[in-house]
Amino acid sequence: MNPEEEKRATPCSSRVFVRNPHLDVMKDDVLYHFGLGTATHNLPAMFGDVKFVCVGGSPLRMKSFTEYIAAEICMEDPESEYPNICAGMDRYAMYKVGPVLSVSHGMGIPSMAIMLHELIKLLHHAHCEDVTIVRIGTSGGIGLEPGTVVVTKKSMDATFLPKFEQVILGKTVERNTDLDQCLAEELLQCSKELDQFETVIGNTMCTLDFYEGQARLDGAFCFYTEKDKQDYLKKAHTAGICNIEMESTVFAAMCKLSGLRAAVVCVTLLDRLKGDQMNVSHEVFQSYQLRPQILVGNYIKKLLKAKAVAATVQQ
Amino acid sequence: MNPEEEKRATPCSSRVFVRNPHLDVMKDDVLYHFGLGTATHNLPAMFGDVKFVCVGGSPLRMKSFTEYIAAEICMEDPESEYPNICAGMDRYAMYKVGPVLSVSHGMGIPSMAIMLHELIKLLHHAHCEDVTIVRIGTSGGIGLEPGTVVVTKKSMDATFLPKFEQVILGKTVERNTDLDQCLAEELLQCSKELDQFETVIGNTMCTLDFYEGQARLDGAFCFYTEKDKQDYLKKAHTAGICNIEMESTVFAAMCKLSGLRAAVVCVTLLDRLKGDQMNVSHEVFQSYQLRPQILVGNYIKKLLKAKAVAATVQQ
Repeated sequence: MNPEEEKRATPCSSRVFVRNPHLDVMKDDVLYHFGLGTATHNLPAMFGDVKFVCVGGSPLRMKSFTEYIAAEICMEDPESEYPNICAGMDRYAMYKVGPVLSVSHGMGIPSMAIMLHELIKLLHHAHCEDVTIVRIGTSGGIGLEPGTVVVTKKSMDATFLPKFEQVILGKTVERNTDLDQCLAEELLQCSKELDQFETVIGNTMCTLDFYEGQARLDGAFCFYTEKDKQDYLKKAHTAGICNIEMESTVFAAMCKLSGLRAAVVCVTLLDRLKGDQMNVSHEVFQSYQLRPQILVGNYIKKLLKAKAVAATVQQ
Repeated sequence: MNPEEEKRATPCSSRVFVRNPHLDVMKDDVLYHFGLGTATHNLPAMFGDVKFVCVGGSPLRMKSFTEYIAAEICMEDPESEYPNICAGMDRYAMYKVGPVLSVSHGMGIPSMAIMLHELIKLLHHAHCEDVTIVRIGTSGGIGLEPGTVVVTKKSMDATFLPKFEQVILGKTVERNTDLDQCLAEELLQCSKELDQFETVIGNTMCTLDFYEGQARLDGAFCFYTEKDKQDYLKKAHTAGICNIEMESTVFAAMCKLSGLRAAVVCVTLLDRLKGDQMNVSHEVFQSYQLRPQILVGNYIKKLLKAKAVAATVQQ
């Protein structure tokens, strides 16, 4: 996107804004991969109260996050099963409890992009306001103790540059991957108050492949040496990169373009300087995977409490 | 990959070959996203007889394909539920009936790449031989009647070039996306014999995004006009592109590199020259989606019958 296009695209209020004049003249809008649509569903009634969206790769993780957050914000219903709102399709899973929406995004930039296009349109059609969105995920760490949580400062591509490149009409367009720095600091502060696990703010590298794309030695193909791998990861480390995952650049770029307040919170499952394979025990893996959920759950609870207090004072 | 690297990588027998010397010195290999491993599972016993692998985006579609193929090759077991072999993880779904393995790959190049790295390693560890792999999927058509099945001749990127670019150690590597032309012709012939729906051989464009990446006007963002869109799609049409999907380039590149006999068979759900939204009825959609399954199912049945006849003659 050129600077002029970006200027036009910068949202001017707290509403979630799509950037597409063609949508105004469409009779109805089918959110195909969600199995939802403006003609078939009352989106304002279903989603109008959403204030927080949490997204993560795995459908099961997003379901367990919903159960966790329901208990945290005292909105759990022991009778409820938290049905998957997108149950008709099996591309994404979506759950909602009170103002918190949880959506899975699968693995990789394209899968995240499809989900975000439809999510942003959903929030737009539902007239949502002041929405905060957080990606909670897993990642490989660089030079960090496994289990450390990384809140992303800058999301970078595989050449260590803070940009997202996308091909539109056959031409490469470059987009900004800025994330909300205040939100990142608030999440770090929240983790300090929690005092349950180590959390750092650092740069995150986003790649298009898990094996060769992340310099692993254990893929089906590998045409480089251990030294080549170490050199690459050390260069990444020098560029301030703390962890590697596969969705953050497009997530940052699309949230920025739509005016969503966004953060990326990923736990590191291993230190890539020491190995490639994920061989921690299932129990340890599960406990690591819970950390971003615990941090973000706590942050949401804190914010909702502060809002409730402000509302009481106003009365 | 440079020509020298490719030469080294060309397989010299019918065995499925990984291209990674590091694997030889690993004590065991965890296929992390499948929830399988050489230390925890007897892969030769579980998968040694696999001759056909069918992959598709949706886990449900791959389950229904397994049920369909079981009936077609007379290996159905009314008592069996065809358990998901990767049930422990919720990244991919995998089913097996006789010599046919079905695996879901999610949406987009990265999700397909992770699955293929682990699938190729699985076939290698299981000592499989003479494996044919087919992607059965859905796509947007260009200038074709919706419901037409396209068998891919060349898989092309969003600039209409038959190549797959991947960033390895921060550098862009270009890979060949050749598919097996004999297999494509055999599939076309099989469709003619079936005579149930229109099938063509044509080029397939593979993109990293479903909305802006495919010149749709109905994404959350769109900074181009209807005319820009039409111009782009017409240029694609001139380059021999019959349909657009999101996984074929990496599929072709990785199968070529590992010596797998590979084809891409996708049904077109709509004609992109006439619209962007998928608004056929659920019944029509379901019947279209079945077409690649029917074609590939029939092809597998035909091949197994020919093998059985050959074995009888030899005796």
